[in-house]
Amino acid sequence: MSKTETHIDPRITESRHRVLTAALEELAEVGYGAFAIESVCRRSGVAKSTVYRHWPGKLALIADALRLLNVQPGSADAGGRPTDQSPWERVVAIVRHLATAFTGSMVADCTPALVDAAARDPELRELFHGYNAERRQTLVDAVADGVATGEFPGHLNPDLAAAALAGVVMYRRLMTPAPLTPTEAEALAAMVLGHRPPQRGPGVP
Amino acid sequence: MSKTETHIDPRITESRHRVLTAALEELAEVGYGAFAIESVCRRSGVAKSTVYRHWPGKLALIADALRLLNVQPGSADAGGRPTDQSPWERVVAIVRHLATAFTGSMVADCTPALVDAAARDPELRELFHGYNAERRQTLVDAVADGVATGEFPGHLNPDLAAAALAGVVMYRRLMTPAPLTPTEAEALAAMVLGHRPPQRGPGVP
Repeated sequence: MSKTETHIDPRITESRHRVLTAALEELAEVGYGAFAIESVCRRSGVAKSTVYRHWPGKLALIADALRLLNVQPGSADAGGRPTDQSPWERVVAIVRHLATAFTGSMVADCTPALVDAAARDPELRELFHGYNAERRQTLVDAVADGVATGEFPGHLNPDLAAAALAGVVMYRRLMTPAPLTPTEAEALAAMVLGHRPPQRGPGVP
Repeated sequence: MSKTETHIDPRITESRHRVLTAALEELAEVGYGAFAIESVCRRSGVAKSTVYRHWPGKLALIADALRLLNVQPGSADAGGRPTDQSPWERVVAIVRHLATAFTGSMVADCTPALVDAAARDPELRELFHGYNAERRQTLVDAVADGVATGEFPGHLNPDLAAAALAGVVMYRRLMTPAPLTPTEAEALAAMVLGHRPPQRGPGVP
């Protein structure tokens, strides 16, 4: 179910997709302070009048780019989640998606600029914190469901657990030379949730 | 054992302390790209010749400021650690220090600028990642010691656990409006390490 920005979402037109992609490129390259709509138009080859018809300014443009170019598995934007997934499978899928998105995507390349801009610009901060909260909620919900079904320990705090899971991905990407690999997602989730996944039958010695 | 930059470390002179403090102010305010030694001299009231005698450039200045103005409990810079602390107590002390440092210190105010600069400047990236690795090592060591003594579960991966502990502090500070409070440090450590701290006698009902 993973999805990258190289696939065009059928709900957005090709020119809109080019503008949103160019917006993330501009943001990653020059940062939020120096971000210029003119430059986005140049990068995308789309006319300024068209861009301004869709987005009143850089904040709206960046908000749309973040939402539409990085669709979470199981989210409404991805068409909802498969009903046969256990809370554990949902958590692993989300953390794996996050790790994948944070290793090679344009959204990941924008994160340092977004972190810095959030410290300087109140509007961008509100957008960024809201975006993070919305994303984190799918993880909080999956953990809370696992606590409710008894799959995860009853004392687990879903908010703290979700911050730990997302926090490792962010920490490894921004603060170290070694981003979390998608294959580490399961070990991370098992540690934070105190969960022993069921064995998949006897292994070959 | 917590320490803030308002206390002058006896090993550094008052004027040196003023320069280092001014360097962090400059970094937090204008970012690494626009950082100017001239401005640090103006802020600190220390002559340019004096500053250049101690530090060849902005990278060296920032490296010293980060190291000397944010001393970790138990580190060599803090005079080593009390020998009677258990691994659990060491982990909680470090996470609590980190949470305190990340709520109100100048080093915390510089982190968004450092994250952004690390994505753009290879030298600063090396400094920043090295600084983080050095800090994280005290946490890795404390977790590894707890695994060795049997205080923490044997399957725990100390590197992943340390990234989760530090990751939550960083995540909550940079990606949400609610930094981790020092009082949450113990609950966080208990979750990540799967540790039930000993009860402190019967509670009042």
